[in-house]
Amino acid sequence: MRSNRFLRACRREPVDCAPVWLMRQAGRYLPEYRALRQKYDFLTMARTPELATEVTLMPVDRVGVDAAILFADILLPLDALGLGLTFVQGEGPVIARPIRSEGDLAGLPPFEPHQDLGYVLETIRLVRRELDGKVPLIGFAGAPFTLASYAVEGGPSRQYRHCKRMMWEAPQLWHALMDRLAEITLAYLRAQIEAGAQAVQLFDSWAGALSPQDYRQHVLPYSRRVLRGLQDTGVPVIHFAGQTSGYLELIREAGGDVIGLDWRVDIGEARRRLGPDVAVQGNLDPLVLLAPPPVIEAQVAHLLERAGTLQGLPGHVVNLGHGVLPDTPVEHVAAMVEAVHRLSRRAGGGTEGS
Amino acid sequence: MRSNRFLRACRREPVDCAPVWLMRQAGRYLPEYRALRQKYDFLTMARTPELATEVTLMPVDRVGVDAAILFADILLPLDALGLGLTFVQGEGPVIARPIRSEGDLAGLPPFEPHQDLGYVLETIRLVRRELDGKVPLIGFAGAPFTLASYAVEGGPSRQYRHCKRMMWEAPQLWHALMDRLAEITLAYLRAQIEAGAQAVQLFDSWAGALSPQDYRQHVLPYSRRVLRGLQDTGVPVIHFAGQTSGYLELIREAGGDVIGLDWRVDIGEARRRLGPDVAVQGNLDPLVLLAPPPVIEAQVAHLLERAGTLQGLPGHVVNLGHGVLPDTPVEHVAAMVEAVHRLSRRAGGGTEGS
Repeated sequence: MRSNRFLRACRREPVDCAPVWLMRQAGRYLPEYRALRQKYDFLTMARTPELATEVTLMPVDRVGVDAAILFADILLPLDALGLGLTFVQGEGPVIARPIRSEGDLAGLPPFEPHQDLGYVLETIRLVRRELDGKVPLIGFAGAPFTLASYAVEGGPSRQYRHCKRMMWEAPQLWHALMDRLAEITLAYLRAQIEAGAQAVQLFDSWAGALSPQDYRQHVLPYSRRVLRGLQDTGVPVIHFAGQTSGYLELIREAGGDVIGLDWRVDIGEARRRLGPDVAVQGNLDPLVLLAPPPVIEAQVAHLLERAGTLQGLPGHVVNLGHGVLPDTPVEHVAAMVEAVHRLSRRAGGGTEGS
Repeated sequence: MRSNRFLRACRREPVDCAPVWLMRQAGRYLPEYRALRQKYDFLTMARTPELATEVTLMPVDRVGVDAAILFADILLPLDALGLGLTFVQGEGPVIARPIRSEGDLAGLPPFEPHQDLGYVLETIRLVRRELDGKVPLIGFAGAPFTLASYAVEGGPSRQYRHCKRMMWEAPQLWHALMDRLAEITLAYLRAQIEAGAQAVQLFDSWAGALSPQDYRQHVLPYSRRVLRGLQDTGVPVIHFAGQTSGYLELIREAGGDVIGLDWRVDIGEARRRLGPDVAVQGNLDPLVLLAPPPVIEAQVAHLLERAGTLQGLPGHVVNLGHGVLPDTPVEHVAAMVEAVHRLSRRAGGGTEGS
């Protein structure tokens, strides 16, 4: 049933139908979100538990997803560290004081999630109370590399020049920075779980800028430390690393109960490469949701077939391969969710734990 | 020896040392290129055989590469079709009259490479004469999808919205357009070979924006038609499709004697997936060439080891995984070429056909 199918799929247990949620489901494609954004800036919304709670809950009934995901930003820990985070219209996030030297790194204050990001933890508690068991709540954090990419570059980047220079020319500094970011990410996610997050996703949105060799040497050990450090909590952990379909095996090696996939890989082929001991999440092209519902339904049917979900293979959380685009019609999102549920509902279904 | 190692590697024959060339080797990182660009705009340079010849030859002695690649632009056929090509500073190519309807497609004039792009063919003849057998000359063209992406979007794109809409919502128009572009690309590459190109590369730079399902259905048949249509010429064909490391098997299925790889996949793993009957090209991260020579040498050594090239496995053309970046120091490019040759030179080498 709706309240447990997401967590059951994460654990590769049978479900009544495939669970679905969408990256950026609590965001700009929702008219009620845009209305709220008229009144408050993005960071104010993320930092105010009542507002963040309102946004987190928006898509749950509106489009019928099987999990809520915390409304927050992956860069809040960098903000808490005093790096100076702002969002510039049309440019994305800007970090005022990037980390480029040993001195920059040494100057960072200690990080304590309850003190520094208490408002996020409060949002989690409020959302859990409001949801009252209807669907589970997913927490999240940026992975060490993705945090480093913003902290070092100073904003979004196409080539990650400063990061790669640091890896190759100042590896000790790079490893010290990643060490620090892994420690922060782990503490932050553990605090989210303690506050009530029933699953968490580690977002390594830009890992795919790296060669597999650089990923293995400069990133994997730190993502692994975070992912291993969550194992004793017992909550499912989703590991999403964009544009890494050339080296999914390394993403699996880093860890996670569920591997998130972008749309550049066939989900059946990905499952074969990842093996049976892990669930998968994904992976429709986000642009599909701009197409008319018959196109959406055909793509959903193909996805469910390729994932083995129609054939009864457990362990598939349906999602896009990237975030919902801002100009996606809300009714298309609802049509996708409905198609996933209808097409994946098992013939005699509803008997296993549902 | 230098004059034949590139063509021998394309054919998976033993070589004295690994051949190397670089995508965009005849370009902005060269001071002599920038000096010439002060006097002429880009399209004038591409359209004037004497200037295009001069640029094509620039890197041959300067950095010691084992092949020359024609100086031209993948969009010249769209220009010849009257779509109105200009290059806008900071924005890249702009197509004045994009193709969005049956009428737009029906309005395209016939294409005849000798008549419409005779200046490219003349450049090939001039370059061959100047090279006089020193190194082979590679011709190239954009693959049907990459041409379509510019023709339909009207310029560079991040999401390929118009293309994907056309595929999904007007598939007949999409297939008719791709049919036309495949025919044009094939005629153009055959004319280049006839004029003297000793190998050709089909560039599908943006194929990786598509899911494997969409690539298979909407792109693969047209790339395959071009690649099969070149087989009787006997010249090696390189098929490069960026960001497709999740579905290299489909790139292989489309065809090519050599599969070009970006840097997001381990070259050894790629060779395993592609099988023994095809050569590979690549795949250093272009940013490596901004790092100091010891970093470059270490990355080259790792590449040659992973490719099996150090162990004597034939069929590796060394290249970057994308074009040379404009701010790459020329001496770093020369250092990379020298390192490839030195590190891959076989102990007792130089006996097989060299």
